[in-house]
Amino acid sequence: MGGTDQARGTRRSPATPNDTDTKENGGGVTRILPSDSVINLDHGDPTMYEAFWRKMGDRCTVVIKGYEHLSYFSTNKNPCWFLEPKLEESIRSLHGAVGNAETDGYTIVVGTGSSQLLQAVLYAVSPQDQPNPISVVSAAPYYSSYPETTDIVKSGLYKWAGDAHGFDKDEPYIEFVTSPNNPNGVIRGPVVNRAGGIVVHDLAYYWPQYTPITSSIDFDIMLFTASKCTGHAGSRIGWALVKDKEVAKRMISFMVVNSIGVSKESQLRVAKILQVVADGCKRFGSPDGDNFFEFGRNAMAKRWEILREIVKKTQMFTLPKYPLQHCNYTGELTQAHPAFAWIKCKDEMEDCEELFKGHKVLVRSGRRFGSDPGYARVSMMGKDDEFNQFIERLTSVIQMCSGDHHGIN
Amino acid sequence: MGGTDQARGTRRSPATPNDTDTKENGGGVTRILPSDSVINLDHGDPTMYEAFWRKMGDRCTVVIKGYEHLSYFSTNKNPCWFLEPKLEESIRSLHGAVGNAETDGYTIVVGTGSSQLLQAVLYAVSPQDQPNPISVVSAAPYYSSYPETTDIVKSGLYKWAGDAHGFDKDEPYIEFVTSPNNPNGVIRGPVVNRAGGIVVHDLAYYWPQYTPITSSIDFDIMLFTASKCTGHAGSRIGWALVKDKEVAKRMISFMVVNSIGVSKESQLRVAKILQVVADGCKRFGSPDGDNFFEFGRNAMAKRWEILREIVKKTQMFTLPKYPLQHCNYTGELTQAHPAFAWIKCKDEMEDCEELFKGHKVLVRSGRRFGSDPGYARVSMMGKDDEFNQFIERLTSVIQMCSGDHHGIN
Repeated sequence: MGGTDQARGTRRSPATPNDTDTKENGGGVTRILPSDSVINLDHGDPTMYEAFWRKMGDRCTVVIKGYEHLSYFSTNKNPCWFLEPKLEESIRSLHGAVGNAETDGYTIVVGTGSSQLLQAVLYAVSPQDQPNPISVVSAAPYYSSYPETTDIVKSGLYKWAGDAHGFDKDEPYIEFVTSPNNPNGVIRGPVVNRAGGIVVHDLAYYWPQYTPITSSIDFDIMLFTASKCTGHAGSRIGWALVKDKEVAKRMISFMVVNSIGVSKESQLRVAKILQVVADGCKRFGSPDGDNFFEFGRNAMAKRWEILREIVKKTQMFTLPKYPLQHCNYTGELTQAHPAFAWIKCKDEMEDCEELFKGHKVLVRSGRRFGSDPGYARVSMMGKDDEFNQFIERLTSVIQMCSGDHHGIN
Repeated sequence: MGGTDQARGTRRSPATPNDTDTKENGGGVTRILPSDSVINLDHGDPTMYEAFWRKMGDRCTVVIKGYEHLSYFSTNKNPCWFLEPKLEESIRSLHGAVGNAETDGYTIVVGTGSSQLLQAVLYAVSPQDQPNPISVVSAAPYYSSYPETTDIVKSGLYKWAGDAHGFDKDEPYIEFVTSPNNPNGVIRGPVVNRAGGIVVHDLAYYWPQYTPITSSIDFDIMLFTASKCTGHAGSRIGWALVKDKEVAKRMISFMVVNSIGVSKESQLRVAKILQVVADGCKRFGSPDGDNFFEFGRNAMAKRWEILREIVKKTQMFTLPKYPLQHCNYTGELTQAHPAFAWIKCKDEMEDCEELFKGHKVLVRSGRRFGSDPGYARVSMMGKDDEFNQFIERLTSVIQMCSGDHHGIN
C-alpha cells in the first residue's frame, strides 16, 4: 500500500545487507554503519521516529499480563468484533485532533497493516457474480505493491489493469488513489471518473509531518496505517474508515477468513500511542516538545532542505516541487515534505536505481511504479545515520559524475 | 484452520449474543451468564486456559516501551526476516520439550494465526503455470473453514474440491490433513495417497492436553498455532515448520504481500509464554502446578468425564471413542480429550444444531464439516461457567426429550 510501503527481503533489496553490522536489542535491529556499508532506502521503514518515542519515556509503555486478551473477541458492541474499543476511540480522537478525516458515521475496520485491508476492500467491492474479474487501476506512478497485491493469487474477482490514465474500458472498475502519492508525494484525486467506478483512497501519508492538511476528508473508503503515521511499522496496524455498512461487513468477513482478526497486543499498544499523539498534538509549538507531528515535520523539513541543497548544486538530478498551501492543522503556509524523494536522473543517465546501487545505496526503480527507470524512489524515513550516509554518497555520486563529465569534455 | 478454529460474528453464530451480559475489562470480555442466556459453543474460543495464566502471575507479563520494535524487520539472519528470534527459539524449545514435532532442519514461518499460513501454503505449493487451479481436498468431516479459506477470492491457482474420500481425478492435488482432526478429535493420515499429491499437516491440536503424543512428527509442512496450544487466540500467532527451503521462501513472499509480516508485540508475548510453557512442562507431576499441559489435560479430562457420564445415561446422543495409547510426553497410557465434542444425535432427531439452538446453545452443524446434520461440533474450551451451563442445558434436553418420548408412547 501507499500505507504500508512494502518492506522486502528479496535479492533486489535485502532486509539488512550482509556487510552491514547489526546488533539486536530490545528496540529491534540497531545498525552500526561502516562507511562502505550498503544503505537500504528501497523500503520505507519509518525508523526516524524512534528518537521521539525514546524521548517520551514511559508514557507509551504497555504492560500485558499472561492471562489477558486470550479470546478472539474484543467487543460485542461492534460488527468489527475483533476491534479493540480503545483503538477505535484513539483513532476517532486522533482524526478529530488533526482534522484530516471525518469519522462520524463511519465504520472502522482494523487490519494487519493497511495491506491486508486493501485486499479486504478488493474482496468487499468486487462483484461476486460476474464471469470476468473487475479491473483494478491506479494512476502511474502508483505504489509498487498494488499490482502484486491484486494479482498474487490470480483472483477471479479482480485483476490488475495498470495505469489509470490508460484505462478506457466502458465497464466497472476499482481505482486506488494514493494521496499524498507514494512514490512522488503529490496530492491526487481519481483520474478515470466514469460511471461504475469505485474509488479507494489510500491516505497513509495524509498527516501533518508529510503534507499540509487542507481539509477533513470524507471519502467513502479511506485507508490509514500506524506505520507511516507514528512510525510503528512493526505493530502491523492499519485501519479503514468505511461509509457503507455493507461494504464494511464484507471487509470484516474477509478479515475473519484471512486471519480471524488482528493482534490484540498491537491494537492495545497502538491505541495508547495514538492517544498520546492525539493529546500531545493539540499543543502545536508548545515548549514541552511532546507534539509528535511537530517533531516529525521539523525532522522531515530539515532532511528535505539538506537534500534540495545538494541537488540544486548539480544538473544531474531533479526533485518534484510542491506548492505552498495553508495547513489547517498548523495554521501555517507550508509545503509538503514527503516520506519519499522521487528523484529523476537527467538526460544521459538511464537507470537511476543502478546508478545509486553502484554507490551502495539501494533505492527503488521508477519501473516498479509504472514509470521509467530514469526515476527512483528513496526513503526519507530511515534513521539519522542512514540519511546522513545517503547524503554523503549522493555528494560523491555528484562529484564523481561531475569529474567524469569534465574529463570527457 | 484446524489450527485456529474460526470465530465468527455472523447471524449464524453471533460473537457474543445480545442477551448475554458482558463487561469489558483488561482481560477482554468477561461473560456473566444469566441462566437463560445464549451459550456460544459454535466457535473454539480457548478461554478455559485463563485460569492457569492468572495463577502464573507476572511470569508471563510483557512490557513494551513506546520506542521499541518500530521497524518492519526482526532479523537479518533468517529468510523469514519478520520472525522475532526469541519466538523462533521458544518454538524450537517447546517442540523439543514436548517431543511432538521435529524442528531440526526446518524453516519456521510465522503467521497471523495459522489461517494466514494456510493461505501462504496454498500459494507456495500451487503450480503457477497451469491453466486450471489445483484441487484442494480434505477428508470429511473436515475443518469447516477450509472451503471458504480456499475459495474466498476465487483463486486461479487453487480450488476447493471437497471430501478427499471422493477425489478420483488423476492430477496433482493438495490434501489438508488435520490431526487430531477438527471436528472429531481422531488421529489421521492422508487418504488420497497418489502421485502428485502435496500433503499439508494441520497439527493445531497435537498437544498433550488433547491427545497422547505418540511420536515426534517430521512431515514436510506442519502448521501449529498458539491459539490452541496455550489459549492465546487474541495474539493471532501461528507457525509453520517447513522442510523445503524453496516452499518456505514462497510462503514468506506471500506473507510479505498479504500483511508485510506479523505483529512484533504478539510475537514477543507468545515467545515469552511458549518459553514459560517449555520450561514448566519438563516437570510433569510437579507439586508446583506450573505445568501448563498438566493443567490442560486435567481440565479437559474432567470435562470429558462429565460429558460422557451424561451422554451415557441416554440413548439420544453418541460421542466418538478414542483408543488408549502410550503418551511419550506423560509416560502414561491415556486417551484423547479433544478440544471439541463431535456429538451425534441418534435416529429420529435430524438436526443436531437446531436441537441445541432450541435450548439456546449455539453449536456448529455437521453440514459445515462436509458431514450430515445429525452431527454437531461443540467447543470444550470455553470458560467454566459456559461449560457448566452447557451441561445443565444438555441435561434438560435429555430430560425433556425423554419426557416427550414417554408422552408419545
